[in-house]
Amino acid sequence: MIKLKEINRIINGKLNGDPDYLIHSVNSISKANQKEISFAVKDSIKLEKVIAGALIVKEDSHITYSNLIYVKEPYLAFAKLLEYFFPHKRFNKTISKNAYISKTAHIGKGVTIGAFSYIGDNTTIGYNTEIHSGVKIYKNVKIGKNCIIYSNVVIREDIEIGNDVTIQPGAVIGADGFGFTRLSNGQPVKIPQKGKVIIGNNCEIGANTCIDRSTIEETILNDYVKLDNLIQIGHNTKIGKSTAISALSGISGSVDIGENVIMGGQVGIADHIKIADGVMIAAKCGVSGNIKNKSIIAGIPHQEITKWRKSFVIYRNIEKYIEKIKILENRIKELEEK
Amino acid sequence: MIKLKEINRIINGKLNGDPDYLIHSVNSISKANQKEISFAVKDSIKLEKVIAGALIVKEDSHITYSNLIYVKEPYLAFAKLLEYFFPHKRFNKTISKNAYISKTAHIGKGVTIGAFSYIGDNTTIGYNTEIHSGVKIYKNVKIGKNCIIYSNVVIREDIEIGNDVTIQPGAVIGADGFGFTRLSNGQPVKIPQKGKVIIGNNCEIGANTCIDRSTIEETILNDYVKLDNLIQIGHNTKIGKSTAISALSGISGSVDIGENVIMGGQVGIADHIKIADGVMIAAKCGVSGNIKNKSIIAGIPHQEITKWRKSFVIYRNIEKYIEKIKILENRIKELEEK
Amino acid sequence: MIKLKEINRIINGKLNGDPDYLIHSVNSISKANQKEISFAVKDSIKLEKVIAGALIVKEDSHITYSNLIYVKEPYLAFAKLLEYFFPHKRFNKTISKNAYISKTAHIGKGVTIGAFSYIGDNTTIGYNTEIHSGVKIYKNVKIGKNCIIYSNVVIREDIEIGNDVTIQPGAVIGADGFGFTRLSNGQPVKIPQKGKVIIGNNCEIGANTCIDRSTIEETILNDYVKLDNLIQIGHNTKIGKSTAISALSGISGSVDIGENVIMGGQVGIADHIKIADGVMIAAKCGVSGNIKNKSIIAGIPHQEITKWRKSFVIYRNIEKYIEKIKILENRIKELEEK
Repeated sequence: MIKLKEINRIINGKLNGDPDYLIHSVNSISKANQKEISFAVKDSIKLEKVIAGALIVKEDSHITYSNLIYVKEPYLAFAKLLEYFFPHKRFNKTISKNAYISKTAHIGKGVTIGAFSYIGDNTTIGYNTEIHSGVKIYKNVKIGKNCIIYSNVVIREDIEIGNDVTIQPGAVIGADGFGFTRLSNGQPVKIPQKGKVIIGNNCEIGANTCIDRSTIEETILNDYVKLDNLIQIGHNTKIGKSTAISALSGISGSVDIGENVIMGGQVGIADHIKIADGVMIAAKCGVSGNIKNKSIIAGIPHQEITKWRKSFVIYRNIEKYIEKIKILENRIKELEEK
Repeated sequence: MIKLKEINRIINGKLNGDPDYLIHSVNSISKANQKEISFAVKDSIKLEKVIAGALIVKEDSHITYSNLIYVKEPYLAFAKLLEYFFPHKRFNKTISKNAYISKTAHIGKGVTIGAFSYIGDNTTIGYNTEIHSGVKIYKNVKIGKNCIIYSNVVIREDIEIGNDVTIQPGAVIGADGFGFTRLSNGQPVKIPQKGKVIIGNNCEIGANTCIDRSTIEETILNDYVKLDNLIQIGHNTKIGKSTAISALSGISGSVDIGENVIMGGQVGIADHIKIADGVMIAAKCGVSGNIKNKSIIAGIPHQEITKWRKSFVIYRNIEKYIEKIKILENRIKELEEK
Repeated sequence: MIKLKEINRIINGKLNGDPDYLIHSVNSISKANQKEISFAVKDSIKLEKVIAGALIVKEDSHITYSNLIYVKEPYLAFAKLLEYFFPHKRFNKTISKNAYISKTAHIGKGVTIGAFSYIGDNTTIGYNTEIHSGVKIYKNVKIGKNCIIYSNVVIREDIEIGNDVTIQPGAVIGADGFGFTRLSNGQPVKIPQKGKVIIGNNCEIGANTCIDRSTIEETILNDYVKLDNLIQIGHNTKIGKSTAISALSGISGSVDIGENVIMGGQVGIADHIKIADGVMIAAKCGVSGNIKNKSIIAGIPHQEITKWRKSFVIYRNIEKYIEKIKILENRIKELEEK
């Protein structure tokens, strides 16, 4: 229970309404009751059925409502209130008797290690990091402070992970890159994968996502990289700061992705491709060449999105154009016969 | 070993053959021996090499064979006989000494819990449910009766699962939805995911499939939803009764899918899309808008399938049409010169 | 530390340089220092900044450098040297006290079994095989010798795995195939999956990849099959010797893939398709029919790649052609008016 004026202070807004109104929780606009606060990003939202106790709106909003808080970034305010009302309850900072921890591992203060987790030789776990149950961490791994590693994550040997990193359940960090050469008879021979994976600070890795170790150099995720579930990151690939990739995307080996790149789901990027900062890639796009400038691309293979859209609109109506060609043919025939 | 007349009773068929013929097992038509029963869905099947002891056929079949059982739905009969000859051998209904079970967990009668599984605080496991080894179930989870949860599944906090649900190995239920907002400098800020996942009765979740928890409301799978392996279900998405989705498909957030929808593999659906009951979506389709009526769709972006097919047939032959344009151009030039 | 002449012997090359030059390690060409050996596959590589102690090149290379070793297959030589300088350090050949091993399991000599792993009844683990921590192996499984099974892999009942097989973390072998029939009201009924998976010798299975068990026969991977991460192999599918499949590809049920087939990432293959030996399938391709001859295919649905490329070049410029049609139309109109 918190007064509106205090919420206003937390989200750094401008309050228009009753400062002493009591708020019990935060909820979606269709479900919020009179004791809950919600948010409305667009002015076009229909308010007839809304009974929320207060609404967070954009600073230039024209919405009329009993209690309003104006903010620059409503989603950010929403994120803050979610964290306020539903704080992440940290685990108990104890180390389970049912975990296996190597005698040569370095476990920081405030660390939680869950049951049936395995910590290998010379591995370091930083201050306050939570390792949930069933996590398997091989030897010579370095994990920073304040990380949350959910159940059944596997981290192979020699991996480096920064601070404030979250890894969702089932992710695999550092499996062998997919590198083979073939004998003259076609038989594949594995190229040993002896490199590592380096993950920066504040990264998030989705459930069952896989980040492969490189042959000899490093696969690198810079700070604030956000990966959704079921993503494949190939060996030796670098991903720039604050880049976000949606589910089921596959990044091949030795790809170099810039900062602030945003990818939809099921995107594929061929190996050794370079993607500039700020590029946006539509879902399902297949990127087969370097993208040199900040741009939006789509299609298989990729095209600049306005070009892609024009081509597709024609494609959708291609029958009509073929019909037209037939008509022209007849008209020419008639002319020729004259 | 069972007599044909008894099999006939189990599958509710009409027997044409020796009612006392002894059957030892069920097998595929190419491998079934004289002591085994098999099934033939189509009349066009070649019978020269078939030596099966009996065949199950559709009630209107014209196949001639020594022992035949006519049924309405041969696949259903086949499913029943597979279960009859190879029953699911339930685990031993014991709770492993090597499992961790919170003192505040509620474990029903007849429950099996395998080695190295973890059951969190206040979690409820219903009557007769099997939890295999290495399963990690967080706190406040409710699981119904007669479920089978295979090894290394992870179920996060506050999830609700109905009765008769099967979850294949490695699936992750309730990982954080992929929700971020960005500061003006582009830096992503996580929107906390405090909602839950609700799974109805008789659902099946494939191996390594991920179903994300929502920001604040619920991600919902209704009864009889069937998900293949390696599928991504985004936060806040609802899936209607009896809908089936094939492997590697990705459903974004806040999608609303109707009942009896069928999707091929590697389908992608954009966020906030609504799909009507009974829609069929071809493999690899990219759905970028609402599908309002029962229909079959294909392509990226999606089109009604007959339209998609016509466009594609033209596309395959596009060279010919371009050639035609060139010829027309020349003929016009000639006419103009006259 | 090893002399160049000894390296030359290991990789069976022809040395041009100082046979007694000392090499400490192997590295990529951009990072190798004067004590390291690297390799240069193409003559076009720029050597100004290269300071490697020696280079491995193709036998017909024209590169000029202080120390060169000529070999037939530089990648193969590279693989050998990686293994020489960074040998796979086998685990300690001990069986963890924290593992659960059925009394009826057969554990060969030299086997390693990690903490929190589960070995079911009547399961056999062959000589020298490494089972890392958290691996769950159900009953009646046969695993050959010299295999490496990484953490949190799940292998269900009745699976057969050959010798020298590597399975990366989180892979699931033998989950139920996705087989359902529907009652007349649309309700799906599971077809029990009672078959098995057979994996040959020298196969590699990627992280979080899933290989489903068949309904009644077998899903088969022949020797030297190489699967990347996050791949779906459907029930009853056969994959021929030395075939390699890249990440996020989905092979439906009852597919028959030949030998030495190579697939890019995110490929999809419809059910019951037959693919000939030596076929190459471009990334993201959707294969909807049999591929009878050795060929290269691309597109959704697939086309022979040269045809696919021609069509796509036209598609990219389709606007121009539509413009052309409009111009022709006007010219005909003018002619007609004369």
